[in-house]
Amino acid sequence: MKKSLGANTIALPLPAWVICSYDESGQPNAMTASWAGVCCSDPPLVYFSARKSRYTYACVMAHRAFTVNIPGAEHTAATDYLGTISGRKADKISAAGLTAEPAEQIDAPYLAEFPLVLVCKLVKTEPLGTHTMFIGEIADVLCEESLLDTDGNLDAAKLRPFIYSTADSTYYAVTDALGQGFKLGRHLIK
Amino acid sequence: MKKSLGANTIALPLPAWVICSYDESGQPNAMTASWAGVCCSDPPLVYFSARKSRYTYACVMAHRAFTVNIPGAEHTAATDYLGTISGRKADKISAAGLTAEPAEQIDAPYLAEFPLVLVCKLVKTEPLGTHTMFIGEIADVLCEESLLDTDGNLDAAKLRPFIYSTADSTYYAVTDALGQGFKLGRHLIK
Repeated sequence: MKKSLGANTIALPLPAWVICSYDESGQPNAMTASWAGVCCSDPPLVYFSARKSRYTYACVMAHRAFTVNIPGAEHTAATDYLGTISGRKADKISAAGLTAEPAEQIDAPYLAEFPLVLVCKLVKTEPLGTHTMFIGEIADVLCEESLLDTDGNLDAAKLRPFIYSTADSTYYAVTDALGQGFKLGRHLIK
Repeated sequence: MKKSLGANTIALPLPAWVICSYDESGQPNAMTASWAGVCCSDPPLVYFSARKSRYTYACVMAHRAFTVNIPGAEHTAATDYLGTISGRKADKISAAGLTAEPAEQIDAPYLAEFPLVLVCKLVKTEPLGTHTMFIGEIADVLCEESLLDTDGNLDAAKLRPFIYSTADSTYYAVTDALGQGFKLGRHLIK
């Protein structure tokens, strides 16, 4: 039996990804986003949404570039912190014990300690209400070498990903493999 | 040390949500989407992306409505199956052992067996390349009553969510709580 919970954004799993950009004076800035995901295969596009009041909004508009920094479970507290206060008020990246490195192809930094980084050129902005969607073309993916298997593919379990749930404002660990995509449901094909 | 993996959509965690709609003859159709997420708080907006060739594309364009059906781990195989073949070729919902129920406020069905459903009116489409983004305003959220705690809030762990990883085309279980949002990183605020 279903119960109505009204019109809201209760949803899961959502990512908790850290968006990095330079501010107008060239200082690295970081913001955590759960309104974020992949939106196209070719060109490879990813988006995040941000309020106009966020420091990241002006940074990405000015430099037309950002990185999506995907944390492992060891970065849960840092990821939460980076979404809690504004980069106007603190050098959040240093305070979180993290290091900003310049990305090669674009005008944005990335977090050296985070295991997976999507390097993005801003291609479109879409104002939607409280939030504006920033759509970026993925120019490169940077992966920590220790997470690659012998064939050079990312071992997702080693990254120890986690999710954010708006249903209960909680981070949850991603753990056991349940099966392969495009294989697990094959027995249902008649 | 980071290694370049090139320009592609390697990302995690991503959802595996089932999009339901009616086709032109009023038959319920379902498609699994991992290019999906929340994109605005007010109005509450959610999106999924689909190729023009997908059956769902014409269905949602015609009826201007869809539901986002969020599965629990017991539905992993059905979710995979619903993303494997086209609704043009099979009555996928029945083949997966699922039941389509009409949503009240919109012209789309939802899956009775799935624990959480976002009921959406199509408000915008955005062609991006291989994929078009369908942005829907969440008119209501339907939740299985057995997953609500005594205060009427969804207990996310009880839902047993899972993710999809494009890094290794694998579904992974979401399990242990790691901490509360806007609390876990508070000790880093100076």
